Amino acid sequence: MAIEIEKKFLLTSDSWREGASGQIYSQGYLSKSPEKTVRVRITETGAYLTIKGRPAVKDGKISAAKLEFEYSIPKADAEELLKNLCSGPIIHKKRYCIEYRGFTWEVDEFFGENEGLLMAEIELEAEDQEFDLPPWIGEEVTSDKRYYNASLSEYPYSQWGKGITEE
Amino acid sequence: MAIEIEKKFLLTSDSWREGASGQIYSQGYLSKSPEKTVRVRITETGAYLTIKGRPAVKDGKISAAKLEFEYSIPKADAEELLKNLCSGPIIHKKRYCIEYRGFTWEVDEFFGENEGLLMAEIELEAEDQEFDLPPWIGEEVTSDKRYYNASLSEYPYSQWGKGITEE
Repeated sequence: MAIEIEKKFLLTSDSWREGASGQIYSQGYLSKSPEKTVRVRITETGAYLTIKGRPAVKDGKISAAKLEFEYSIPKADAEELLKNLCSGPIIHKKRYCIEYRGFTWEVDEFFGENEGLLMAEIELEAEDQEFDLPPWIGEEVTSDKRYYNASLSEYPYSQWGKGITEE
Repeated sequence: MAIEIEKKFLLTSDSWREGASGQIYSQGYLSKSPEKTVRVRITETGAYLTIKGRPAVKDGKISAAKLEFEYSIPKADAEELLKNLCSGPIIHKKRYCIEYRGFTWEVDEFFGENEGLLMAEIELEAEDQEFDLPPWIGEEVTSDKRYYNASLSEYPYSQWGKGITEE
């Protein structure tokens, strides 16, 4: 078990791509209740079952901290779970890890029904920890539920319509 | 992954107790949707995360076969999951394993909000596999959703009222 503190941002340019190499992720959800999600993920190097407690609401804002439990599972199991028991369309994305001033930024480039969406995440040790924003980082969307991967598997980006895309 | 074929029965007497010794189980649910359950279980010897696909409906009857995936997890994680992320009251029961004519019967004796409920399960290799019923076995309740452990954590036996108890 761990407490995961994660902030999410949209991107303003493609300059992060320089020299970045990514890994394909496929993921789906066994559960996406308001309180927690149970995720099945297959990457190029392994397969995982991950349980996350949904963010607490603090002063009317959604906190960036979540309870997280992750277990490695056989890839064949993950494939069966995605195929037979996960609800909604499977999310396909490519994840790039980019170092910037002492922090690792994870940039997710979505495909399929979420094609066109790019999102960057940073993991922190405390909610008020300071960090420098890379020049390609845009609006913070940590509190915006539409950008949760669990939401994207239900209401994919391609269905959001015009005017809701990144600035 | 495995296909689990399980039949459930009520009991007619206490004669199964002779020489039986049981193990305490505590379990709760991260998800209990109509299609699948994600269960957290702590026994005296380990802790487990189990995903079960809900029974298929065949000819109007609920099939005894389920998809099942089970993973061993650290006991401390299971305790955190039961405490913080499982919904509804935790199920407490004692499980006894009883051999009868080549099959293992699992008898569950429930406590807490399900006090008074006793249920026996047998695991089979095929839905039409033949087996002998021990003399203490009563009505089959495989298709009765009230007896699913996931249901019992939401609508416990003590709330069923009179007239619905075992015959």
